[in-house]
Amino acid sequence: MPMHSFDAMLQLQPQCPAPAQAGDPLHYLAHTHAGYWNMVGPFGGATAALLLQAVLQHPKCQGDPLSLTVNFAGPVVQGAMHITATPLRTNRSTQHWLVLMHQRDERSGEELLSTSATVVTALRRPSLNAERVCPSSSAPIPAPENCPRFDTHGAMEWLRRYDWRGICGHLPTQWDDSPHDTLSQLWIRDEPARALDFVALAALCDVFFPRVWLQRARLVAAGTVSFSVYFHAEREQLAAHGTQYVLAQADAQVMRNGFFDQTAQLWDVQGQILATSHQIVYYKE
Amino acid sequence: MPMHSFDAMLQLQPQCPAPAQAGDPLHYLAHTHAGYWNMVGPFGGATAALLLQAVLQHPKCQGDPLSLTVNFAGPVVQGAMHITATPLRTNRSTQHWLVLMHQRDERSGEELLSTSATVVTALRRPSLNAERVCPSSSAPIPAPENCPRFDTHGAMEWLRRYDWRGICGHLPTQWDDSPHDTLSQLWIRDEPARALDFVALAALCDVFFPRVWLQRARLVAAGTVSFSVYFHAEREQLAAHGTQYVLAQADAQVMRNGFFDQTAQLWDVQGQILATSHQIVYYKE
Repeated sequence: MPMHSFDAMLQLQPQCPAPAQAGDPLHYLAHTHAGYWNMVGPFGGATAALLLQAVLQHPKCQGDPLSLTVNFAGPVVQGAMHITATPLRTNRSTQHWLVLMHQRDERSGEELLSTSATVVTALRRPSLNAERVCPSSSAPIPAPENCPRFDTHGAMEWLRRYDWRGICGHLPTQWDDSPHDTLSQLWIRDEPARALDFVALAALCDVFFPRVWLQRARLVAAGTVSFSVYFHAEREQLAAHGTQYVLAQADAQVMRNGFFDQTAQLWDVQGQILATSHQIVYYKE
Repeated sequence: MPMHSFDAMLQLQPQCPAPAQAGDPLHYLAHTHAGYWNMVGPFGGATAALLLQAVLQHPKCQGDPLSLTVNFAGPVVQGAMHITATPLRTNRSTQHWLVLMHQRDERSGEELLSTSATVVTALRRPSLNAERVCPSSSAPIPAPENCPRFDTHGAMEWLRRYDWRGICGHLPTQWDDSPHDTLSQLWIRDEPARALDFVALAALCDVFFPRVWLQRARLVAAGTVSFSVYFHAEREQLAAHGTQYVLAQADAQVMRNGFFDQTAQLWDVQGQILATSHQIVYYKE
């Protein structure tokens, strides 16, 4: 079996020396993956997943992901990435991490910070629970099989790594400045299908096209500045989910003077929340 | 005029040497302020404001706050705090920051990380804008003067630093495990009134009591783990706002196995969004 392209993208080679003490950083070498290329760099969700993987692969990592914040500080160029994961503090039930990703600037030879992330991992304990099952939608959610599949032939590489089944709030087909509601819902999974795990879930939280494109059907330059994921799923829910489709929803609250926000929720097929997510996105017009 | 207690709380003494180069860290000494004490440490919003202030006070800071993520890694104890603000990358229109706060552990003498933060500051440019004005509420929002004022006599210190005017979703008066909607709305401002700025806005995003207390009218131990603010207000909106009340709304999407999320929005009196915010909170029962 050849390796799934998502796993190939996630390859991290630990660099000597390995961390000796609990608080020591671990340095990794990674490479951008052509299969997850976006317009001018990797799909942001792939970079987020890679930085999270750098934490999960650290031998001192305790617990499972609880929160992830990724700040996209500068362009990620094709080639080598130097990633350092440092445990900042280890408690009984939570652990706090800083992840920095640098790339060598071709002109200056300098190591430039491209992306930074903070991660909290946690050991979870049973408690009384409550949640909103399923999205608050005016219409019932159709099954994935009954939703039109987005044709990714000839699309940007990373789009072809997913199986997209739109429900509402599709990418506009006419860029005519007409007003649209900014809510999108879709079913999505890796293509080919791959069992859901925390890193894949992180990437899925960033699959939505920019809300500003939908708001008035206009294609403008846009790029995520800061992106956060709260993981509500635990191992058991992910294992039960397997390769099924994820129900994904995104919306925006405000677009103002070059930046808009995005809120997102991901559910499993039973309507149980997997993750909630937020981002602030640059746009230019 | 004596200094406002919020400004007294924000006092940061830069430590020699001052940063010589654009990427150099700046070290500060600060002290916890008794006026913002919560049950077992400072009000988290005050700590968030202080870490943001460490960025804004750095001589190389460019632009105004766009996003802030604060990770509460361990307890903050009364006394000295050592804060380091480091510019990770400076672009034309955005700047990325890492802020670390350490305190000396009395037993081991070791410097322990208490809190970390990442901040993005930005220079903003006019664009076509869109937003949802006012909260989506079933009932009209009454004026602050017509809302009952929360009596803070004898309450925890930090609660007395604010003027609270509840609209809906009040703190339960009977802890009887009865189910409640998790939405709260209130008018709030500093007490005594203080002109709104970015640091005050950051603190205001964290004023809500834990959603789990409301969900089933039960007092359980709870503490924020990770807290994010997206700043949509610019200087002009803050200056126009002055000392007026802020309309604040919080809700939760999911409470599961020891952690719940909180979403929040803050508006000015004209119904224009000031900030949106999210947090993931530990709870125990």
